[in-house]
Amino acid sequence: MTSRAVVLLSGGLDSATALAVARRDGHECFALSVDYGQRHSAELAAAAVVGRHLGVREHRTVHLDIGQFGGSALTDMRLDVPSQSSPGIPITYVPARNTVMLSLALGWAEVLEAGTIYIGVNAVDYSGYPDCRPAFIAAFQAMANLATRRAVEGSPILIETPLIDLGKDEIIGLGISLGVDYSLTVSCYRADSLGRACGSCDSCRFRRLGFEVAGIPDPTVYQH
Amino acid sequence: MTSRAVVLLSGGLDSATALAVARRDGHECFALSVDYGQRHSAELAAAAVVGRHLGVREHRTVHLDIGQFGGSALTDMRLDVPSQSSPGIPITYVPARNTVMLSLALGWAEVLEAGTIYIGVNAVDYSGYPDCRPAFIAAFQAMANLATRRAVEGSPILIETPLIDLGKDEIIGLGISLGVDYSLTVSCYRADSLGRACGSCDSCRFRRLGFEVAGIPDPTVYQH
Repeated sequence: MTSRAVVLLSGGLDSATALAVARRDGHECFALSVDYGQRHSAELAAAAVVGRHLGVREHRTVHLDIGQFGGSALTDMRLDVPSQSSPGIPITYVPARNTVMLSLALGWAEVLEAGTIYIGVNAVDYSGYPDCRPAFIAAFQAMANLATRRAVEGSPILIETPLIDLGKDEIIGLGISLGVDYSLTVSCYRADSLGRACGSCDSCRFRRLGFEVAGIPDPTVYQH
Repeated sequence: MTSRAVVLLSGGLDSATALAVARRDGHECFALSVDYGQRHSAELAAAAVVGRHLGVREHRTVHLDIGQFGGSALTDMRLDVPSQSSPGIPITYVPARNTVMLSLALGWAEVLEAGTIYIGVNAVDYSGYPDCRPAFIAAFQAMANLATRRAVEGSPILIETPLIDLGKDEIIGLGISLGVDYSLTVSCYRADSLGRACGSCDSCRFRRLGFEVAGIPDPTVYQH
């Protein structure tokens, strides 16, 4: 039997690449998107397209109204998404987001009897986010090893983070080598309803620079 | 300033007691319920009543459609809730439930600048659930210490499990001493829409026995 994997799929560049790696690793992939009330729902629409493009067995979206908690410019409509980075943890940080998403993936993986979870976290470009660091992932793994029925029965679910040490240009190079069509992905924090990128938010700037450094033409559709 | 705590509140006996302990400890309490598509929504209605009774500052319910994942008799309508316990992990176990609920509490605590999360897990009556064990809670704490902006800034959020080593009778004794009105709580896995208990599921049997051993009249309203 093919081994199953749950892949967290946002519709952005990183998670699309993580999915391509999971497919390369031979897994039957179950993509999970979380609609946590983010502004950029174009990214979620892209997730469905990217999932089909990369041959997932199934794609599910869990609706989770943590936007009501506030605290992030990505879910709180009263805060502006900044165009320029400032030092420290960015205002676009969503409280406990990766913890919540990995927890949901863990639950679905357990039901599916999937042995692996892929998440496209990246410590290089997102060093300001506490839940993108290798130490956080290791601690989540240790917790997951105690959390589930599978773990109790001797086969814990493994968290794979294939992009964690890569620069954006390396991620793009890896994805291109695995056949990812990045024109289908949406990374922008302020994408319009057609999925067109603003070109100036942090996410857009990292992405644009990544294509530039990788020497690959940027397929992103911009608003301007 | 009064210290804030997020309290996971299901509307059952244990979480009501955990909330009473959080109040005793002097916290301003923010109750969080998670509607994960469970059958016993009477328990959620009870949560709102219990929250008011015990003086929470605010009560929020997050809707989370993990029932779509299946795998538990509590969320999967195709599985029957058994009347008798069987050895091992019960069929009423919801995959990764406490992991997901604690993650959500962590996110809200971070936004509220709350320093503590209370959860009424109990290792005595629920030894079959992997995510009710002290080792799991310790691992979650270690992960949480790396997960949040607060933690990075030097003040991690503490997970309190005041009931973890108590028997049901001790939990009831503790709650009574703190003024909990257990007639407001609903524990039954198969409660009807009025919150009346079946009297025969695992949860009912543990609860009934708890009142008996504690020597306290059982205030539960049963269907029969």
